[in-house]
Amino acid sequence: GDGKARVERMFGFMDRFLKNDPISLQKDIMDHVEYTVARSRFSFDDFEAYQALAHSVRDRLIERWHDTQLFFKRKDPKRIYFLSLEYLMGRSLSNSVINLGIRDQYADALTQLGFEYEVLAEQEGDAALGNGGLARLSACQMDSMATLDYPAWGYGLRYQYGLFRQVILDGYQHEQPDFWLNFGNPWEIERIHVTYPVKFYGTVHEEDVNGVKTQVWVPGETVEAVAYDNPIPGYGTRNTITLRLWAAKPSDQIDMESYNTGDYINAVVNRQGAESISSVLYPDDRSHQGKELRLKQQYFFVCASLQDVIRRFKDTHDSFDEFPEKIALQLNDTHPSLATAELMRVLIDEENLGWDKAWNIVCKVFSFTTHTVAPEALEKVPVDLMASLLPRHLQIIYDINHNFIEELKKKVGLDYNRLSRLSIVEEGAVKNIRMANLAIVCSHTVDGVSKSHSELLKTRVFKDFCELWPQKFHYKTNGVTQRRWLVVSNPSLSSLISKWLGTEAWIRDMDLLAGLQEHAANTDLHEEWNKVRQVNKMRLAEYIEAMSGVKVSLNAMFDVHVKRIHEYKRQFLNLLGIIYRYDCIKNMDKKDKSKVVPRVCIIGGKAAPGYEIAKKIIKLCHAVAEKINNDPDIGDLLKLVFIPDYNVSVAELVIPGADLSQHIRSTSYCLCMLKAFHLMLLTCLNFRHIILCEFYFFFNLFIIRISIYLSVINTEIWCSTAGHEASGTGCMKFLMNGCLLLATADGSTVEIIEEIGSENMFLFGARVHEVPALRESSPLKVPLQFARVVRMVGDGYFGFQDYFASLCDKVEGGNDFYLLASDFESYLEAQAAADRAFVDQEKWTRMSILSTAGSGRFSSDRTIEEYAETTWGIEPCRCPS
Amino acid sequence: GDGKARVERMFGFMDRFLKNDPISLQKDIMDHVEYTVARSRFSFDDFEAYQALAHSVRDRLIERWHDTQLFFKRKDPKRIYFLSLEYLMGRSLSNSVINLGIRDQYADALTQLGFEYEVLAEQEGDAALGNGGLARLSACQMDSMATLDYPAWGYGLRYQYGLFRQVILDGYQHEQPDFWLNFGNPWEIERIHVTYPVKFYGTVHEEDVNGVKTQVWVPGETVEAVAYDNPIPGYGTRNTITLRLWAAKPSDQIDMESYNTGDYINAVVNRQGAESISSVLYPDDRSHQGKELRLKQQYFFVCASLQDVIRRFKDTHDSFDEFPEKIALQLNDTHPSLATAELMRVLIDEENLGWDKAWNIVCKVFSFTTHTVAPEALEKVPVDLMASLLPRHLQIIYDINHNFIEELKKKVGLDYNRLSRLSIVEEGAVKNIRMANLAIVCSHTVDGVSKSHSELLKTRVFKDFCELWPQKFHYKTNGVTQRRWLVVSNPSLSSLISKWLGTEAWIRDMDLLAGLQEHAANTDLHEEWNKVRQVNKMRLAEYIEAMSGVKVSLNAMFDVHVKRIHEYKRQFLNLLGIIYRYDCIKNMDKKDKSKVVPRVCIIGGKAAPGYEIAKKIIKLCHAVAEKINNDPDIGDLLKLVFIPDYNVSVAELVIPGADLSQHIRSTSYCLCMLKAFHLMLLTCLNFRHIILCEFYFFFNLFIIRISIYLSVINTEIWCSTAGHEASGTGCMKFLMNGCLLLATADGSTVEIIEEIGSENMFLFGARVHEVPALRESSPLKVPLQFARVVRMVGDGYFGFQDYFASLCDKVEGGNDFYLLASDFESYLEAQAAADRAFVDQEKWTRMSILSTAGSGRFSSDRTIEEYAETTWGIEPCRCPS
Ligand SMILES: Cc1ncc(COP(=O)(O)O)c(C=O)c1O
Ligand SMILES: Cc1ncc(COP(=O)(O)O)c(C=O)c1O
Repeated sequence: GDGKARVERMFGFMDRFLKNDPISLQKDIMDHVEYTVARSRFSFDDFEAYQALAHSVRDRLIERWHDTQLFFKRKDPKRIYFLSLEYLMGRSLSNSVINLGIRDQYADALTQLGFEYEVLAEQEGDAALGNGGLARLSACQMDSMATLDYPAWGYGLRYQYGLFRQVILDGYQHEQPDFWLNFGNPWEIERIHVTYPVKFYGTVHEEDVNGVKTQVWVPGETVEAVAYDNPIPGYGTRNTITLRLWAAKPSDQIDMESYNTGDYINAVVNRQGAESISSVLYPDDRSHQGKELRLKQQYFFVCASLQDVIRRFKDTHDSFDEFPEKIALQLNDTHPSLATAELMRVLIDEENLGWDKAWNIVCKVFSFTTHTVAPEALEKVPVDLMASLLPRHLQIIYDINHNFIEELKKKVGLDYNRLSRLSIVEEGAVKNIRMANLAIVCSHTVDGVSKSHSELLKTRVFKDFCELWPQKFHYKTNGVTQRRWLVVSNPSLSSLISKWLGTEAWIRDMDLLAGLQEHAANTDLHEEWNKVRQVNKMRLAEYIEAMSGVKVSLNAMFDVHVKRIHEYKRQFLNLLGIIYRYDCIKNMDKKDKSKVVPRVCIIGGKAAPGYEIAKKIIKLCHAVAEKINNDPDIGDLLKLVFIPDYNVSVAELVIPGADLSQHIRSTSYCLCMLKAFHLMLLTCLNFRHIILCEFYFFFNLFIIRISIYLSVINTEIWCSTAGHEASGTGCMKFLMNGCLLLATADGSTVEIIEEIGSENMFLFGARVHEVPALRESSPLKVPLQFARVVRMVGDGYFGFQDYFASLCDKVEGGNDFYLLASDFESYLEAQAAADRAFVDQEKWTRMSILSTAGSGRFSSDRTIEEYAETTWGIEPCRCPS
Repeated sequence: GDGKARVERMFGFMDRFLKNDPISLQKDIMDHVEYTVARSRFSFDDFEAYQALAHSVRDRLIERWHDTQLFFKRKDPKRIYFLSLEYLMGRSLSNSVINLGIRDQYADALTQLGFEYEVLAEQEGDAALGNGGLARLSACQMDSMATLDYPAWGYGLRYQYGLFRQVILDGYQHEQPDFWLNFGNPWEIERIHVTYPVKFYGTVHEEDVNGVKTQVWVPGETVEAVAYDNPIPGYGTRNTITLRLWAAKPSDQIDMESYNTGDYINAVVNRQGAESISSVLYPDDRSHQGKELRLKQQYFFVCASLQDVIRRFKDTHDSFDEFPEKIALQLNDTHPSLATAELMRVLIDEENLGWDKAWNIVCKVFSFTTHTVAPEALEKVPVDLMASLLPRHLQIIYDINHNFIEELKKKVGLDYNRLSRLSIVEEGAVKNIRMANLAIVCSHTVDGVSKSHSELLKTRVFKDFCELWPQKFHYKTNGVTQRRWLVVSNPSLSSLISKWLGTEAWIRDMDLLAGLQEHAANTDLHEEWNKVRQVNKMRLAEYIEAMSGVKVSLNAMFDVHVKRIHEYKRQFLNLLGIIYRYDCIKNMDKKDKSKVVPRVCIIGGKAAPGYEIAKKIIKLCHAVAEKINNDPDIGDLLKLVFIPDYNVSVAELVIPGADLSQHIRSTSYCLCMLKAFHLMLLTCLNFRHIILCEFYFFFNLFIIRISIYLSVINTEIWCSTAGHEASGTGCMKFLMNGCLLLATADGSTVEIIEEIGSENMFLFGARVHEVPALRESSPLKVPLQFARVVRMVGDGYFGFQDYFASLCDKVEGGNDFYLLASDFESYLEAQAAADRAFVDQEKWTRMSILSTAGSGRFSSDRTIEEYAETTWGIEPCRCPS
C-alpha cells in the first residue's frame, strides 16, 4: 500500500526520457557547466564546454544503456563475452551523437549558445587503450555488436596510461605517457561496487576433503579489480551495450603481515603499487614475451571478467549445465587465453564440479581468433614465471595437456615429433607454455582474420592442429564500422552516398553500397564526388600546415602511408621510392618536369619504444622531408610530411583526404624453403658490388617464376603466400572513403581484389599479371636504382650518416629479410601506374567510386554476423524503443 | 549584437537557482540516481541513494560557492590563506544541509521517496585527513571562517589514504589503510585545469645575469599539483568558501632522460610514483622528524599553495607593494613553515624583487600558531636532507638566519649561548633546521592556543624569543564549531536550547548560551534536558551493543574517555582507576554494592602505528573489559567498552551520550626543577617495596605544598604549570553538550574553570582546594592501591603477563614520567566526587546545564574573530543573497 505508492512515486521521476529539442539540450548543457564541471558562467573555456556537452550526451547514453541491460536481464538470451586486452576506441562524442541520432539537434543547440559543435568535439582526447589493428578491430566490432542488437559484453583493461603519445623532436620520436584520464572521462561510469578480488603467487598444497584429494591454492597477494563501464550505443537501435574495463586497486582486506611488521607509510605506499597492474599498456603491437607485469595484466583481466560472467550467470541459474547454452566466450588473440585455465579452476576448485564436467563446459564455451602470421611470434610464457605467479593454473594447464596428449597418442600414435609440436608445453632449456596451443585445445572454434590468413594457418602457423582438427578452423574476414569510418569521419561523402542511393539504410547494411556501381560513370556524381574529396583534402592540407608548417598543393596526389612503423610494413620501401622520385625529378629537364604528377607523400605512425630500426625510419622520413621540402628545384612536385602521433582521431582526418593509400607490407611470395635458400645465397654474395646486382635480379626473377609455377599448381594463387599481415583493416577504411589502394596482395587485400577487381587498384609484388611488365622493363635499371637510393641514405646525403648506417644494413648485403630490393621495381611500376591513372581524372574518379561501392563486404557488421551465426551461436535481442 | 544575445541566452540558463521544495529535491535526487550514479530504478541501494542525495546537495553548494568566489573577486578584500597539513572534516552531508538551511526539506523529500534521511546520512564515510586535535581545529575554524563571512581559503593535501582505520582483532589494534576515495567523493570538485609544477632536488649554481650574481636552481624532478576544491558553506549566510587540497600527479612535461634511456614500462610505472607524495597521511599526532617523504609533502603543499595565491594576486594587481595589504598567510603549526623560504625564493628568483623588498613582504604576511608544549617536540629538518631535496631553499634559510643573527648581535651582543638557542640552524653532530625558529623569525605574530599554553611559551618553549620580541607573542584560545558539535550531532539538545533561549541566534553567536544560566534550576528544563540526554544515551548504548556485543544499562553513568591514545593523555590512569573500582566492588558485601553508582566506562582512540606502549594500553583495555564484563559478581555496576576506530563521526555519536568525560592528561604541577628532583629521587628508591610508598606519598605532599606556595607567590595559580596539552578541544565539545568534565587543570580547562567555575567540574591534580581532601583521606591507602592495581596487571591477572610487563615498567620503579602514581589518589577522589554528584540527579542536571551555558567562549567563531581582528587584519565580506 503505502510502500508501493512510494516506490511508484520514485519510479515516476525516472520514467521520463530526456528531451532532445534544442532548448532542453541547451539547458542540460548549461546545467552541466554549472554543476558537473562546476564552472561559473563567467569563466569556462571550450574544454569545459566540451565536458558539459559530453555529460549531457552521457546522460542520454545512460538511459538507453539501463534499458538495454534490463531488457537483456529479462530475456536472458545466450550472451557473447568478448575478451580483448586492447580497445582503440578513439573519441566518443561524435560517434555517440551519430549513433543516438541527435547530432544535428546538438549542433543547433550549441550554435544558439554561441558554440561550434566541431570546435568542442575537437577538445576530446583519444581513448587509446590499444596499439593498432587488433585493438581498433575490437572497437569496430563492439560498435557492430551494439548496432546488430547482440547481447554482447566487451571486457578489457582500463589502462591508466594508454598508448604513448608520439612527440617528434628534431625528427626523432620520443614517447610521452598518455595521461588520458587526467582530465576526467565522461564516457565511463565508475562502478565502485562491482569489484572482485584477484589473487596471485602463493603455494598449492594437497588437502584431503571428505576423502577426496584436493588441490588448495593459498595465494600470496590480493588485488582488487574495479569495473568501469563504457556504454556502447548501437546505430538505429535503442540497444546500448557495455564495454567493461577493469582497473586495479589495492585490496582493502586486512593484510596483517604487511602492516604490522614495520613501516606503516611504506606499507601503504607499496600497497598502492597494486595499481601498476593496470597502469600502462604495453606499447608493442606484436608479442610481449615473458614479462611478469604483462602476465599479471592478462590474468588480472581474465580473472575479474570471469568472476563477473559467472556471477551474472549464477544470479539467474542454479546449475552449470546451462552454462554453454547461455554463454559464449571469445578470446581475441592469445592474450586472454588464461581464461581457459581460470574457468577450469573456478569450476573445479570453487564450484566443485569435478574435472570432466568442468572440461566439458570449457570446451563448449570458448572460441579463439588468432591474428598471428608467423609461428615464431606466438606467445609463450616461461613455466617458471607461471609457477611463481599462478601455481594452481600451471597445474591445471599441465593436466589439460596431459589429457590432450594421452588422447592424441591413441589417435596418432607415438609420433613424438608431432606430439611435441602439438603439446601445450614446450620442452627445452627454458620450458614454456604455448598460449596459442592452450587456446586451440580448449576452444571449439579457431578463426583466422582473412581468407589468406586462414590458408596461412593451415599451411604454416597451425599446420599440425589443422590436420588434427580440420573442422575447428575457420576464418572471418575482418571489417570496420562504417558508422565511425564514413558517417562520423566523412559526413559529406556519407550524405552524397545516401543521396545517390536514395536511402541511409546502408549505414546498417553496407551491401547496399554496391548500388553506387551503376552510377560509377555518371558525370554528375563525378562532379559531386570530386567536390567532396576536394573539401576533405583541404581539411587535411590545413592540418598538415598546422602540424608541420608545410604548405601543400590541393592539385597534388595525396599519397598516404599511415600505420604502425614496422619493417614488415615497409615504410622504408616507401621512403626509398620517394628518394628515387626526388632523384628523378632533380635530374629532369623542364619539359619532363611538367609531366610529373605532383605528389604529397604523407607518412604517419608510431614505432614501439624499443624498436630502434623503426625509430630510424621515422628519423629518415624527417631527414628526407627536410631535404625535399626545402629544395627549390622541386617545388610542389613532391612534398613529404610526417604526421605525428597517428591515432584514431588523426586517422579520421587523414583517411577522407587521401587520394592514394599504401599497404605495401612484404609478402614473401616464395615458399619458405625457397626464401631461406634465397637469403642464404644473398648472404654469400656481396650485394654492395653493383656488378652482382644483375645476378641478384635474375635470381629474383627465377624465384618469381618458381612461385608462379607453384601457384599455378595450387590453382588458388594465394595459397602459398606467407605474408606478414594477417588481414589489415586500415585499407578497408581507405577503400570505403574512395581512396585508391597501392598494395601487395596479401591479407584482406586478396578479398578486396575479389570485390573491386585488380584493375581498380595498384597491386605489385607477386601478382601474376605484373610479371610481364617486370620483364619488359630494363632488367638492370631498377636494382641499380635501388642500390643507388640506399647508398644516398648510407652515404649521408640526408645527413646523419652514422645513425642511418644500421638501417641501410637491413636491406643491403643480403640482409634484406623484408625483400625491399626484390620488390622495388614492381613497387615503382605500381606507383607509375598510379601517376598515369591520376592524370586521367575521370578514370580515377570512377575507380574511387568503385572502391567505395565495393567496400560493402568490409563492414564489421558482416564479420560480426558471421561470428554470431557460425562461431558464437547467438541471436539478436532488440530492446524495444 | 548577435554575440551578446547568445551570451545572454547562455547566462539565462544559469541564472535560476535550484529549488528546494520537496518535489524539486526528489526530482533532483532521482535524476542523480539515474544519470550521475548511473543506477537503474530497479537496483540501487542505500549507498547509491546517499550518493545521489549528496550530489544534489553538492549542486546547491556549488551555486553558492560560485557566487561567493565571484563576489570576493569583485570586492578584492584582504584575504586570509590558512595553511594546514591536516583537516579532520568528518562527514559533509549533514553539516552541509544544516548550514544551507535545508535539512528538513530534504528529510521530507526522502520520506516521500521511501527513504530515511538518517539512514542515508550514515552511508557517508569520514574524510579523515588529519590525526586529532590540530586537524579537527582546522576543520572547525574553516566552518567559522565561512559562517563569519571572512574571505578565507584553506589549503592542504588531498591524501589518498587518510588516517588509518583502527581494526581491533583479539583486542590488538591493527591499522588498515583508509580507502576513503575508493567510493568517490561528491564533496570535492576536481579542478583539472588548476595545476602547478612543483620541483625537487637538483643543484644550484651561480650565474651572472646582467652583472648581478644570481643563484639558479636547476631542479631534478617535477611533480604536478592538481587542485581539488571542497566547498565549505557558512551557516546563515550565502558565503561558501574553499578548502583547496592538492593531489600529486606525474608531470606531463617531456622528460627525455627517463624515457629514452631504457625500459618504457618501468619509466611510466616509476613516474606514477609521483603520486605517492600525496598518498598517505603520517599517522602520528605529534612530530615526524627527518623523513624525506614528509618533507616532500610539506614542500609540495606549500609550493602549490603559494603559486596559487600569487597567481590570484597577480590576476588583479601589478605590483607586489600591495601584497601585504591583500594577503595574510597563516601557518598552522610548523608543518607549512617552508612557505616562508618559498615565498622568499619566488619573490627573489622568479619575481626579481631583490632580497630587501622580498624580506619586507615576507615579514608582513605570515602569522604562526604553535601547538607545541615541549621544546624537545619541535620539528627539525636535517640540513643534509634539506640540501638534497631543496638546495635553493637551504641557501635562503641560511641567508635569513645570517641576517637575523647579525642583527641580533647588534642588539644583544655576543652572548653565544643565547645566539645559538635562537639560531634557525642547530649546530651539532647532525646539523638541523629548526622549523619553529624559522617560522617565528619570519612571522609578525606568534599565537599559542590557550592562555596556559601562552604562559608555557613564555616560560619554556620559546623563552628566548619571548624575551627578544615580547610583542610578537599572543594567544587565541581554541574553539570548536557549535554547528557541527551541537546542531548537527545533537539536534534534540539544540532544539531544546533554542526553545528555552527563544531564539536560534546562538548558532551564530554562542555567547547567547549564557542565557541558559537563569533556567539552570528550572525543573521543567531539567525534565526536558534529562529526556534529551537519555535519548542520546540510548543511541550510544545501541551503538555499543552493535560494536562490542556488550549490553549496558541506561541508568549507569556513561564515563567517556575518547582521544588519541598517548601516555601523556593517561588512558592507563583511567584503566588503573577502573581496575581499582573493579577490585573494590569485588570485595564489597551486598549492602555496600547497593550504594555503588553503576558505571559504563567508554574508552576510544587510535594509537600511532609505531607506538608500542599506546598499543599495549589498547590491549589492556580489552583484557580488563573481558574480565569485568563477564564477571557475574559485577553485573551492571561496572562495564568497560572500547569503541574502535574513533573518528569525527564516532565522536558525534559518543559526545552527546556522555555523562562524564575525562581529560586527565598529566600536568606537571611542580616546576621543572622540582620535577627533575622528584624523578631523580624516585629512581633512587625502589617503589616496588610497599614500605617505601609511605615515603613516596609524603614526598608528594611536600611537592604539592611547594607548588601551592609557588602558586600563591605567582598569584596566577596556573602560571607555573607545564602541562602536556596545549589546549585540548575535545573537552569543549563535551562541555557544550552538557557533559561534565573530569579533568586536570591545564590547557583550555583553565579557561573552562573561569567560565563555569570549578564547582561544576571534577578537577584533580594540582588544584588548591583539593589538597585538604587529600590530606583527610588515609595517607597510606592510595599508593598501596596504586601499586596493587599495577601489580594486578603485571602479575597476569588479566592475562598477557609478558606483553604487559613493559607497560607496568612505565609507571613502576621511578619511571613514572607522566605521574600516574602521584595523581592516582587525587584522581580517585575526583571520581568519587563524580559518583556523589551523580546520585544527586538534580545537582548533576544543574551542573550539566551550566556546562552548556558556560561554553559560549569555546566557539571557534570567537577564536576566528580574534585571529581576524588582531592577527590577520581582515574584514568580513558578505555575499548578498
Ligand atoms: C590508430 C590506428 N592504428 C592502426 C590501425 C590499423 O591500421 P592497418 O590495418 O593499416 O595496420 C588503425 C586502423 O584504422 C588505426 O586507426
Ligand atoms: C576524531 C577526533 N580526534 C581527536 C580529537 C581531539 O580531542 P582532544 O582535544 O580531546 O584530544 C577530536 C575532537 O573532537 C576528534 O573529533
